Amino acid sequence: MLKIEHLGIAVKDLQKSNDLFAQLLGVEHYKIEEVASEGVNTSFFKVGENKIELLEATKEGSPIEKFIAKRGEGIHHVAFEVEDILVEMKRLEAAGFTLLNKKPKKGADNKLVCFVHPKTSNGVLVELCQSIRE
Amino acid sequence: MLKIEHLGIAVKDLQKSNDLFAQLLGVEHYKIEEVASEGVNTSFFKVGENKIELLEATKEGSPIEKFIAKRGEGIHHVAFEVEDILVEMKRLEAAGFTLLNKKPKKGADNKLVCFVHPKTSNGVLVELCQSIRE
Repeated sequence: MLKIEHLGIAVKDLQKSNDLFAQLLGVEHYKIEEVASEGVNTSFFKVGENKIELLEATKEGSPIEKFIAKRGEGIHHVAFEVEDILVEMKRLEAAGFTLLNKKPKKGADNKLVCFVHPKTSNGVLVELCQSIRE
Repeated sequence: MLKIEHLGIAVKDLQKSNDLFAQLLGVEHYKIEEVASEGVNTSFFKVGENKIELLEATKEGSPIEKFIAKRGEGIHHVAFEVEDILVEMKRLEAAGFTLLNKKPKKGADNKLVCFVHPKTSNGVLVELCQSIRE
C-alpha cells in the first residue's frame, strides 16, 4: 500500500456538501464524475497528496443510498493506492480477506479498483486502487 | 489542510487488530501509545506519508467505547495536518463549524489537536493536528 489515495464520504446533497467541504478544506473540488455502474455522483478535492471523494447516490437501492439510510452521512470507505492491484488482491485473499469483486473494475478518477469486505477488515470498507496506465 | 495525517479506526482488541492491519497494510505498527486523558490505547502504522491509528478503549464510558457500542468497529475520524492549528481553528469557527475543544489539546504522536463536531461536517468527525515544535 503506497498511501491513502482518498477517503470516500457519503453525502445526501452533493452541491451543498461541495460548498461545505470547500470551506472545511480551504480548497474547491476539482472535478465531478458520475459512475453510473455504482449509482453515484462523485466529487473530488485535493488535500496535499491525498484526496477527499464525496459520494451522492443517483438511484434508489444504490450502495450509498443504503449506507446513508442505515448510518447517516459520514465516512464510507478508505482507498489505498497500490502499485499492482492484481498482486495485492492475490496477497489479501491468501491472507484471509474477502474481496467484493474477483476482478478489478473501473472506478472513478481513472482507477482500477477492488473492495475488501468490511467484515474481514474490522468494519472498514477498504478500496484498493491502481492508476490505469495509458 | 496539508494532507491526511491519519485515519483513526475504532477497534475492540488492539492486539488482534494490530495483527490484522499488519496483514492488510503489509507493514507492522511502529508504536503503541496510551492517551490516558481520552481513555484510549493507540497504535500507529505508516502508509507512505499517511498513518493509520487504531484506537482501543481503556475504560468504560470513553468515546471509543461509546462509538463501538453504537456503531461497531470501523473508521472513527480523519485527521488533517495543519500548519498552524490556531489559525485553522479560528478560520473554521468563523465559517460556522463547531469545535469540540476551544483550545488545542495534546494528542497522541506529539501533536496538538482539535476536533470538529461531526454535526457541522456531514457526519465526519474531523481532527486538526499540528506537530509540536521543539
